[in-house]
Amino acid sequence: MKLWEKDFNPNSEIEDFTVGEDYLLDQKLIKYDVMVNLAHAKMLGKIGILKVEEVDKILKVLDEIKSLDEKGEFKISKQQEDVHTAIEEFLIEKLGDLGKKIHTARSRNDQVMTDILLYCKDELKQSNQTINQLITLLKAFCKEHTGIPMPGYTHMQKAMPYSVDKWMGAFIEMLNDDLNAIDFAQTAIDKCPLGSAAGYGVPENTIKLDIKMTSDLLGFAKPFDNPLYVQNSRGKYEQIVLFALNQAMMTMNKLATDLLLFTTSEFNFFSLPDELCTGSSIMPQKKNYDVLELVKGKTKLVQAKMNEISLLSSNLPSGYNRDMQLAKEPLIQGIDISKSVLKIMILSIKNLKPNKTSLEKAMTSELYATEKALKLVKKGMPFREAYKAVSKDLK
Amino acid sequence: MKLWEKDFNPNSEIEDFTVGEDYLLDQKLIKYDVMVNLAHAKMLGKIGILKVEEVDKILKVLDEIKSLDEKGEFKISKQQEDVHTAIEEFLIEKLGDLGKKIHTARSRNDQVMTDILLYCKDELKQSNQTINQLITLLKAFCKEHTGIPMPGYTHMQKAMPYSVDKWMGAFIEMLNDDLNAIDFAQTAIDKCPLGSAAGYGVPENTIKLDIKMTSDLLGFAKPFDNPLYVQNSRGKYEQIVLFALNQAMMTMNKLATDLLLFTTSEFNFFSLPDELCTGSSIMPQKKNYDVLELVKGKTKLVQAKMNEISLLSSNLPSGYNRDMQLAKEPLIQGIDISKSVLKIMILSIKNLKPNKTSLEKAMTSELYATEKALKLVKKGMPFREAYKAVSKDLK
Amino acid sequence: MKLWEKDFNPNSEIEDFTVGEDYLLDQKLIKYDVMVNLAHAKMLGKIGILKVEEVDKILKVLDEIKSLDEKGEFKISKQQEDVHTAIEEFLIEKLGDLGKKIHTARSRNDQVMTDILLYCKDELKQSNQTINQLITLLKAFCKEHTGIPMPGYTHMQKAMPYSVDKWMGAFIEMLNDDLNAIDFAQTAIDKCPLGSAAGYGVPENTIKLDIKMTSDLLGFAKPFDNPLYVQNSRGKYEQIVLFALNQAMMTMNKLATDLLLFTTSEFNFFSLPDELCTGSSIMPQKKNYDVLELVKGKTKLVQAKMNEISLLSSNLPSGYNRDMQLAKEPLIQGIDISKSVLKIMILSIKNLKPNKTSLEKAMTSELYATEKALKLVKKGMPFREAYKAVSKDLK
Amino acid sequence: MKLWEKDFNPNSEIEDFTVGEDYLLDQKLIKYDVMVNLAHAKMLGKIGILKVEEVDKILKVLDEIKSLDEKGEFKISKQQEDVHTAIEEFLIEKLGDLGKKIHTARSRNDQVMTDILLYCKDELKQSNQTINQLITLLKAFCKEHTGIPMPGYTHMQKAMPYSVDKWMGAFIEMLNDDLNAIDFAQTAIDKCPLGSAAGYGVPENTIKLDIKMTSDLLGFAKPFDNPLYVQNSRGKYEQIVLFALNQAMMTMNKLATDLLLFTTSEFNFFSLPDELCTGSSIMPQKKNYDVLELVKGKTKLVQAKMNEISLLSSNLPSGYNRDMQLAKEPLIQGIDISKSVLKIMILSIKNLKPNKTSLEKAMTSELYATEKALKLVKKGMPFREAYKAVSKDLK
Repeated sequence: MKLWEKDFNPNSEIEDFTVGEDYLLDQKLIKYDVMVNLAHAKMLGKIGILKVEEVDKILKVLDEIKSLDEKGEFKISKQQEDVHTAIEEFLIEKLGDLGKKIHTARSRNDQVMTDILLYCKDELKQSNQTINQLITLLKAFCKEHTGIPMPGYTHMQKAMPYSVDKWMGAFIEMLNDDLNAIDFAQTAIDKCPLGSAAGYGVPENTIKLDIKMTSDLLGFAKPFDNPLYVQNSRGKYEQIVLFALNQAMMTMNKLATDLLLFTTSEFNFFSLPDELCTGSSIMPQKKNYDVLELVKGKTKLVQAKMNEISLLSSNLPSGYNRDMQLAKEPLIQGIDISKSVLKIMILSIKNLKPNKTSLEKAMTSELYATEKALKLVKKGMPFREAYKAVSKDLK
Repeated sequence: MKLWEKDFNPNSEIEDFTVGEDYLLDQKLIKYDVMVNLAHAKMLGKIGILKVEEVDKILKVLDEIKSLDEKGEFKISKQQEDVHTAIEEFLIEKLGDLGKKIHTARSRNDQVMTDILLYCKDELKQSNQTINQLITLLKAFCKEHTGIPMPGYTHMQKAMPYSVDKWMGAFIEMLNDDLNAIDFAQTAIDKCPLGSAAGYGVPENTIKLDIKMTSDLLGFAKPFDNPLYVQNSRGKYEQIVLFALNQAMMTMNKLATDLLLFTTSEFNFFSLPDELCTGSSIMPQKKNYDVLELVKGKTKLVQAKMNEISLLSSNLPSGYNRDMQLAKEPLIQGIDISKSVLKIMILSIKNLKPNKTSLEKAMTSELYATEKALKLVKKGMPFREAYKAVSKDLK
Repeated sequence: MKLWEKDFNPNSEIEDFTVGEDYLLDQKLIKYDVMVNLAHAKMLGKIGILKVEEVDKILKVLDEIKSLDEKGEFKISKQQEDVHTAIEEFLIEKLGDLGKKIHTARSRNDQVMTDILLYCKDELKQSNQTINQLITLLKAFCKEHTGIPMPGYTHMQKAMPYSVDKWMGAFIEMLNDDLNAIDFAQTAIDKCPLGSAAGYGVPENTIKLDIKMTSDLLGFAKPFDNPLYVQNSRGKYEQIVLFALNQAMMTMNKLATDLLLFTTSEFNFFSLPDELCTGSSIMPQKKNYDVLELVKGKTKLVQAKMNEISLLSSNLPSGYNRDMQLAKEPLIQGIDISKSVLKIMILSIKNLKPNKTSLEKAMTSELYATEKALKLVKKGMPFREAYKAVSKDLK
Repeated sequence: MKLWEKDFNPNSEIEDFTVGEDYLLDQKLIKYDVMVNLAHAKMLGKIGILKVEEVDKILKVLDEIKSLDEKGEFKISKQQEDVHTAIEEFLIEKLGDLGKKIHTARSRNDQVMTDILLYCKDELKQSNQTINQLITLLKAFCKEHTGIPMPGYTHMQKAMPYSVDKWMGAFIEMLNDDLNAIDFAQTAIDKCPLGSAAGYGVPENTIKLDIKMTSDLLGFAKPFDNPLYVQNSRGKYEQIVLFALNQAMMTMNKLATDLLLFTTSEFNFFSLPDELCTGSSIMPQKKNYDVLELVKGKTKLVQAKMNEISLLSSNLPSGYNRDMQLAKEPLIQGIDISKSVLKIMILSIKNLKPNKTSLEKAMTSELYATEKALKLVKKGMPFREAYKAVSKDLK
């Protein structure tokens, strides 16, 4: 069945091309689409389109779908195209004509956007928690290794004395800022699309929806004001979510880059235990930090998914454009990748060991040149003179 | 003079390559670097590195620079490399040895970042005002043209009835959301880098800086906590600023895309007066909406500048990396472009006229198909049946 | 089994993170890895590492794998990580100690790159054929519709008279150029990596490989000269392939953009039959050109995959970096998407119908303004004067 | 004067916005626009639109412009918008009515594209020479330092023995391949746009142009076949040019990344003399390799400029779109940056010194593990067993 079935059969090649992997991606959205159906049914009950007992029957079947989904047993077929069709079909199968009423005054356009925003809100919440977990861990790391000296670098050259805990402390402050970006995203996308239908609402001379009610039931801050904006937000909202997650990814990119440099045998400042490393198929001696290389690479993928959505949304007129359906995959991938990166960094940091001996040996004298100059300043020499004096001395 | 002058002359080709256009871009930063010098001098006074009268002398010269800059007469030479050197040289020229003290306990690394953040905060504030101005204008446009009908489109095909004011209303709600992104950016970058020196602070056994004082003097919410984070924020902070401005750019991209479609002779829904349009060098009849095409294109440039910075910041270790100096140009360009786009859209909207006759003629019957189906629903027919009934009728 | 198995078990979370979806993507490479094993075994035979009968035994088992793969029955398990391990394991299972010899003097690093290049060469060849098929079709379209008039547009406004066949003719010339890009890519990546081992070849004082022989057996133009370049080419070669395919994608993007504009009810220049279009779940009247919107969107995905690889390859030192393993997915996706876009455009063009009546009606008088001016020129008026004369007349 | 001047004055804000920096960028194109005017005038002479003596007069004035430009004295004013207007105005000023004839049967659309392609062809030729110069230098470097040992790395960990000349040899082979990309670009864009006018040619019932003649005069391989393709190639051709140059940039990115790692005090494999390095404004001891960091960063800019053009060209219909004018700046910048990167690398390589002592010390025993395993293989042990044996030994 197609929700837009007419009296001709769509070409099967076209069907393959247009449906794509959507039916697979939508497995992630079943949970949210059930919530949306539930809120919509209750609302249709309140405004008199459905009778109380009809609403009850629908809720019961939706509950059944929810249970099936939790057991991984609710499957969307390719022919069904998407989660919305799969659920509507299930309702019709179980409830006959009553099932055919559920799509009253809504479109897949507003449904899918509501599903996606509920999903994103959930994921942002979880990422917030994971980042907080990582921060706690980094704090413990700093506490455990307080005062172990470590050179500070600029231009990849030794610059000034620093310490292991201060170096890692920078990442704690970074992650705290990254949480603010996630907070922003959570607020920015907290609007309920349901009721905007295809993007132009429902003619008021037919049915008057209670969009405040569905918004409240679904836990949104408020409904979208202008139905057209729901469709015009596509691409923008997805980018906001990935932008927020990408902040923490940039932090992880730098941490992984640092660690890859600092675990070379030449630096030898840190190490991970063997079981977190991998080997080579040809070189018997190898202990590789693949995990850090992949963290580095995967953070770039999140950036790439965000760029992908921005390329898709470019130069599109108002209203729904099918191009934007293609944003679902990079959105979900970006979220999944950022989650896995954060989790693997938690594991890595738990096992990260500073090599105190190497770090101490690395604290060579040139790191103290600025200190020397400033001591001359304290004795009254203008800084620029002190700088030159120390500089000459080093030759 | 180079602030890092040693006893050899740097190669002139290298000098050209490394300085690049920085000395020109830095003209925009003079105003802010003066503020930074001023705060730094006062603080050095407070902690006893400079005497009261020394501070006064420095402030007087800084004031002179400020006046020169306001008249466009303070020029940074290529040989000076950057604004920091130009100002320090001017101080030395006027104050001799006293001028050589100003760079005590600071680096160009923290200076430039402070300049840039002050500049960004200013620009974000101005953008906020310009967007608010545009919103006011759009509201007036909606009021003036309330109730003029206009087809709503999905997939570029006629979908449902809408109206000129509701169509434009979507952009008002979008811009209001875009303002939230700017608010976020303003808060996110509101940290003072001064005192972080090269990225590792100043050895505490030499001089104890009062970074709270400089932060307050410069109007920041607070100083950075970890000096290394100042350098690690490079690339991130610039992206946050452009991301925020790009939100409004995406809105403008859609508005320009709509208008270019709706001003074709085939749609003919809107027009701009001749003096806002351009002609052709070969075709005598042409009236082109170049302004809208360039708005569309320029919004893409802001996105491109953001991507440019993200490419630059990829896979860099902690601490200052000279690569990031190259982020200054796309940052400034991105800000300037977004400003010009908003301003030209204000002018365009002021002059935009809906063509009522064409709009009314465009309200063809198929736009009311959903309404017909929903009226059948109100009479009790399940929606899916009503949909099929209307669909058959249309054949 | 891991090919780099030591006496500890890798952490299972790390295993999940590092293997990712590689074992699934590698299903596409089985065919090529069998070819690589085959060539390598023959070469080891020739240089005396394997005996003739050993080579024969190995070839027989490889043939078995090939047959299994053709029936879709050779599956790589997650635990095996990749195709190379799966095949080596199968050989060991069937041949015992002999199987353990196959990895002599090679690394997964050179193996995977050889697999990928063989795969890319195959795909480029197929794309070349598909584009040629499309060109033939477009030529037939032009022939069938020769001389139907059509306005030419600049700035989205009517500019000068053109015709349906000349408009489509532009796409034929574009695609012919796109074929040159594919030719370039085919030549550019035609180098055999096998024998470069981990990126530093095989110590010459141990085993002397015949890399010319394996290169010839696999149908490459020549082997890589410098083993390190094999690894340094990662990211570059993938981008070259996607760049070439993306040329045709840009052409398809423009064609789809044109068609979406020209199939609006306002232009109404072309149409596709109902069975190639889709409908709406709420609006009974809709006939949407989703297929063209998705073509437009999917061409952007190919660009995005190319950018993804460029982000991954940024700022990486010489030699194998695990980050680059992540390039496999965007490469395969980019190739698959471009293939599906070309195929669906073939179907669409086959069914595309110009609407002669609308096109003729669209040939309004302003399209002939330049012609008028040029006729004045022929009578001796300077062009700039003629332009002004016609321009005034149009008022 | 505007070439499209009508009887109203364009709004000055619009003028600023639409002209932008074009009049400055066009200074680079004067030389090529003179060539285009020259070829066009000769052709108009041949087909009888201009008389022999008229052509001669025009050629004389064009020669004057050429001389002025060579002395840097031909300036385009903002009001003139672009090089085409500046030259046409100069001709009218000098020749009166005759000057007004030069724009017969051409548009700025075909003119600018011809200018740009001539410019690109020139630049590609120069880049080819510069890359060849760099290759020669690298070969000399390899010869001079043949046989100095150097560890080969994978995953940033020591892998197998290599040597300085073999390491650098990889870059020679890479650059040789990069030259092929430049060759491809040179051929790909070698089509003459002149005569395509606004994108739809010149009505055949007015004037019959000899586009083969202008193409030959300008040194192109052939004219574009379909006038519309000239406009549809915009964005594509620019990307082809930058893609080709970016190949060498990727090579330079890797070389700079290597050198930055290998010049850290921890590796200490190579060094550049002081005069190619820079210092710090606060740390007296610093010797920084800014030049390499900026090479690394600037190569990313070339990539970014290419992406910028791809964002601009997305989803645009056939025919001239003003958006594409914005591609001129990133194109010119991308070309200029790539040129400067290649030149500075020539200087750097000329001065690069391997530190033999450090390199020899770095050849630690684990680098020879694979060699040991392969020696066991030669004695008959299956490779997988030999691998395990050596691996155990290393513990």
